[in-house]
Amino acid sequence: MTAPAPWHATIITLFPEMFPGPLGQSLAGRALKDGIWALDALQLRDFAHDKHRSVDDTPCGGGAGMVLKPDVVDAACEGAAIAARPLVYLTPRGAPLNQAMVREFATGPGVVLLCGRYEGVDQRVVEARGMREVSVGDFVLSGGEPAALVLLDACIRLLPGVMGAAESADEESFSAGLLEYPHYTRPVEWQGRAVPPVLLSGHHAEIVKWRHAEAERITRERRPDLFNQYTASRGALARPPAAA
Amino acid sequence: MTAPAPWHATIITLFPEMFPGPLGQSLAGRALKDGIWALDALQLRDFAHDKHRSVDDTPCGGGAGMVLKPDVVDAACEGAAIAARPLVYLTPRGAPLNQAMVREFATGPGVVLLCGRYEGVDQRVVEARGMREVSVGDFVLSGGEPAALVLLDACIRLLPGVMGAAESADEESFSAGLLEYPHYTRPVEWQGRAVPPVLLSGHHAEIVKWRHAEAERITRERRPDLFNQYTASRGALARPPAAA
Repeated sequence: MTAPAPWHATIITLFPEMFPGPLGQSLAGRALKDGIWALDALQLRDFAHDKHRSVDDTPCGGGAGMVLKPDVVDAACEGAAIAARPLVYLTPRGAPLNQAMVREFATGPGVVLLCGRYEGVDQRVVEARGMREVSVGDFVLSGGEPAALVLLDACIRLLPGVMGAAESADEESFSAGLLEYPHYTRPVEWQGRAVPPVLLSGHHAEIVKWRHAEAERITRERRPDLFNQYTASRGALARPPAAA
Repeated sequence: MTAPAPWHATIITLFPEMFPGPLGQSLAGRALKDGIWALDALQLRDFAHDKHRSVDDTPCGGGAGMVLKPDVVDAACEGAAIAARPLVYLTPRGAPLNQAMVREFATGPGVVLLCGRYEGVDQRVVEARGMREVSVGDFVLSGGEPAALVLLDACIRLLPGVMGAAESADEESFSAGLLEYPHYTRPVEWQGRAVPPVLLSGHHAEIVKWRHAEAERITRERRPDLFNQYTASRGALARPPAAA
């Protein structure tokens, strides 16, 4: 019996030395050492074809900043041996990353991540390669690298064999379309603040009910967008807000 | 004349060796060496008070995973010398990070970031300390550390003196409430794909108009949520979709 092929992440970047970075430690680091996932970080500059190793040029139509050249990015994609893996371009213009997308990536053979810098990548190579444009949020980063670390961390923890009991994925945020209920641990009284009594009652069914109600309440208060999706997907009417 | 105090980031984490990590390189790395920002990463375990240096305990009410203890987290906050800085707890239950929040953090004296692990932090210390709960997106990470790297990267690039012309922040995603228009650079024809002719026309006003129309089109197609905010904030009706 042969071991399964590791989940394979390839990064195309001007800063390959940023990887594995934080992913070389903790959960992801152990999984990397154990061969559960594998990483190549390709230096985009190695795919330039002039003597200056240029990767960028000024934007057509003018304006500040530089744009990554389509021919150089295309050559790097060729070098990445993409095979059946999704080719993801990390950009604030992309579809927002969510847990469903993370699960999709984690259950496949791996990902190829293109990290933009400066103003971005020439749109023609994004289209020619059918890249999937993905954003980690409505903010601007210095480049795609921190976004790549986030995407990989989210995927790696879901790979079989990565999480132990302490990091259980069973009851977590978004798995039911709700934010998670609040957590409490000992001491049961701390600085005059008590753990909610139901959690100490030993009544399992009551605890489950309380946690679900809290998850609904917090989602409704903090994220009406998620709460509307949740109620719509259940085909149920939103409950009226509970008295505080 | 004395130099201004650096923008000050303090991280409370079980993995201080993950910092500065990728932020030790490129733009953020140069700014760190130049004293534009400063970093402490505090080991949460150093604030435990028993001989085992315990930082977590089982959840009240049962369930998988472990919860970070309120007393230990509180002692770490005390050790962080927060002063006027916002104390941010990175959690998927938080308010979604956006560019307005990034600007607010970047224009202040710095941030203190608490990175959760396992199931999270006892809710009582979150409330007692008035922590700001912030999420980098609707997905689950192995801990707050990759989220902290993203938040810091987004802030640091906005600090005075960090960005040069190549990284100009003038015309970027979200600054006008729209996703950014597509970018193109040389060659003007690549693999049978041409740069849109208007960008080569030399007519500055036409180029500005085209780019704005593209930004509106892309935002409307990809992010109706942002587009609705944009049209509402302009007090204008959304234009009907342009013919493709």
